[in-house]
Amino acid sequence: MLDFRFSNTTEIIFGRDTQLQVGEETAKHASKVLICSYGQPFEQNLMNTIKESLDKQNIDHCELSGIKPNPEETKVYEGIEMCRSSDVDFILAVGGGSVIDTAKAIAAGVKYDGDFWDLYLGGEFSEALPMGVVLTFPATGSESSNGSVVTNASTGYKLAIIDNCLRPKFAILNPELTFTLPPYQTFCGVADIMSHVMERYFSSTTNTDLTDRLSEGIIRTAIRNALIVLENPNDYDARAEIMLASTIAHNDLVGVGRTQDWASHMIGMEVSAVYDSTHGATLSVLTPAWAKYVYKDNLSRFVQFAMRIFDVEYDIDEPARTAIEGIKRMEAFFKRIGVPATMQDMGIKTTDRYMEMAEKACQNGPLGDIKKLQAQDVYNILMLATQ
Amino acid sequence: MLDFRFSNTTEIIFGRDTQLQVGEETAKHASKVLICSYGQPFEQNLMNTIKESLDKQNIDHCELSGIKPNPEETKVYEGIEMCRSSDVDFILAVGGGSVIDTAKAIAAGVKYDGDFWDLYLGGEFSEALPMGVVLTFPATGSESSNGSVVTNASTGYKLAIIDNCLRPKFAILNPELTFTLPPYQTFCGVADIMSHVMERYFSSTTNTDLTDRLSEGIIRTAIRNALIVLENPNDYDARAEIMLASTIAHNDLVGVGRTQDWASHMIGMEVSAVYDSTHGATLSVLTPAWAKYVYKDNLSRFVQFAMRIFDVEYDIDEPARTAIEGIKRMEAFFKRIGVPATMQDMGIKTTDRYMEMAEKACQNGPLGDIKKLQAQDVYNILMLATQ
Repeated sequence: MLDFRFSNTTEIIFGRDTQLQVGEETAKHASKVLICSYGQPFEQNLMNTIKESLDKQNIDHCELSGIKPNPEETKVYEGIEMCRSSDVDFILAVGGGSVIDTAKAIAAGVKYDGDFWDLYLGGEFSEALPMGVVLTFPATGSESSNGSVVTNASTGYKLAIIDNCLRPKFAILNPELTFTLPPYQTFCGVADIMSHVMERYFSSTTNTDLTDRLSEGIIRTAIRNALIVLENPNDYDARAEIMLASTIAHNDLVGVGRTQDWASHMIGMEVSAVYDSTHGATLSVLTPAWAKYVYKDNLSRFVQFAMRIFDVEYDIDEPARTAIEGIKRMEAFFKRIGVPATMQDMGIKTTDRYMEMAEKACQNGPLGDIKKLQAQDVYNILMLATQ
Repeated sequence: MLDFRFSNTTEIIFGRDTQLQVGEETAKHASKVLICSYGQPFEQNLMNTIKESLDKQNIDHCELSGIKPNPEETKVYEGIEMCRSSDVDFILAVGGGSVIDTAKAIAAGVKYDGDFWDLYLGGEFSEALPMGVVLTFPATGSESSNGSVVTNASTGYKLAIIDNCLRPKFAILNPELTFTLPPYQTFCGVADIMSHVMERYFSSTTNTDLTDRLSEGIIRTAIRNALIVLENPNDYDARAEIMLASTIAHNDLVGVGRTQDWASHMIGMEVSAVYDSTHGATLSVLTPAWAKYVYKDNLSRFVQFAMRIFDVEYDIDEPARTAIEGIKRMEAFFKRIGVPATMQDMGIKTTDRYMEMAEKACQNGPLGDIKKLQAQDVYNILMLATQ
């Protein structure tokens, strides 16, 4: 185990009707709030509830809606401007990862004198407006994480910032709000949750018993409950397990004391940047392809993954078979829940831009931890994901 | 899953030589510090290091040493007096659960005008001096928990307070500091860690997939690494796994969204109050006895426990056999690591006071969640723990 520091200060407020508590929670921190949202018609009831709850506490609010998946900078600039002109002292994100990550960019940007992109290009910062979350789409874990990812529309880069000042003060998680999520979004979310754990699990650090076991538990939980939701989208407990798994998967508890891989995420981000693909879909496509490409570089990790998560029997004569069977079962699970398995499934019909994406992905050096991937490796993985 | 709130604000600072960071961490919160400790000779080096680290940051400090296991009020009164007379604004606990729980009692007591026992008898409070921990004995999880247990010497009651204001600001965890712990203390600690998980795991709440899996992972980790430490007390990684498990076991992550049992702990506290028995030892004795007494009341929980933690095969014809085998394997594990298995092993030679202890344990109502235990049940469990 490596040395580490860990804390997660976000207060999780979990359960039925918890969105009714948003005013009271916000009142602890705020007098003027910017509400960020997708602004989809189906969210109107929820938005009304939230505004009423804020009104009850006499909290003034303004609104930034229309945030899109793979969020871009336009909304960030708009939000920063609104915060400054209206003396906003708290941001409330109502939505999923894209809304939360936009809110985080605004929160950091408001406190910074220059262009907020400076921060995403490595500029130092340790200050952001406080914020809260009402989660409607469990996937990215951004509701209690310290990171944010935004797409630079002009360069096509997805860029990230990480700092503990970005952790929301509270995250309101009501599984009932996810009943109406379309299956595709639900299960792309599950792929994202699983990937957040796998990116940490596939590590070259040895002796990581506890975090391995916790990781395996989260993935098994995501799998079991995804299959329940597949049958019954209104199963409260299964939705609750997925929602809680999303938060725990990415608050970095299971990443402490180990190096982490993140190659699949990094490659997926290039795919999303070029094709605007759903984040979770890039992961259900790329993770199995990546695994097939790298498993020999840390066979024992992949054998453990296969045995402990997918109950594959250990093949004494040829342990590699155990590892391969684990990867196949992961692929089969993704197919069963209907998320894309190939680049074509995401509507990507040509390999023309693969080398460009591969080079962009590696422009700051090789990717990953299990195996250090050069641009050619990334290209090969993209090809493996193509049938 | 039940509705819940969860946050854990304690910053975990984990790894080799982390005690050298204590001055810098304390300086974020304090100008005058009370250091609480056991004051054992073998801790002298560590204490010197800590004082040097505080001196380097020009942090003034005074010291309260001589705290004993199953801590009593004398040291609490002494500490409160020292804090008040010396304008202490931060408490640093260097030790295990007894030191930390005493420090928490002082921290809350300083902020309260009346007798600190009022708080332990149900008095409301929401304020305490901030505190930090350098952990030397992983067991109670008090380093990041929100609770404190102190023994009232005159009445013989062990009493508890719980409030988030009691969570330490930071907890410094260096596994190397535990290399020299005697085996008995080490493994009583492991029993305590396992018990903190089991008290939450054995719940009548259904549909608790994620927290079940996390719980099973913690217990398996504790078992595996205890056996490694049994062979080699200086195995850094095994000590590290036990230390991290101790913290995660009791920060209540695995207790969210479910009712909890705590009968074994409550009975054990009565035993400790009367016989001054080591806390972990009461749990290695009482948990198996409790399990044998209650398993029929929630057979499926005990079957899952047996299968997922001790790899017992499911007995299709008679599932109860699976449950019983799980309990037997837990007992066998405790015997293997040399912690007490019976009341006699703890030096308790007579059953004369069992009914008194049983009645005291139940004076505020029946104990437990899996089965509601009356005084007669508690007596029966104590008898089951006696051979």
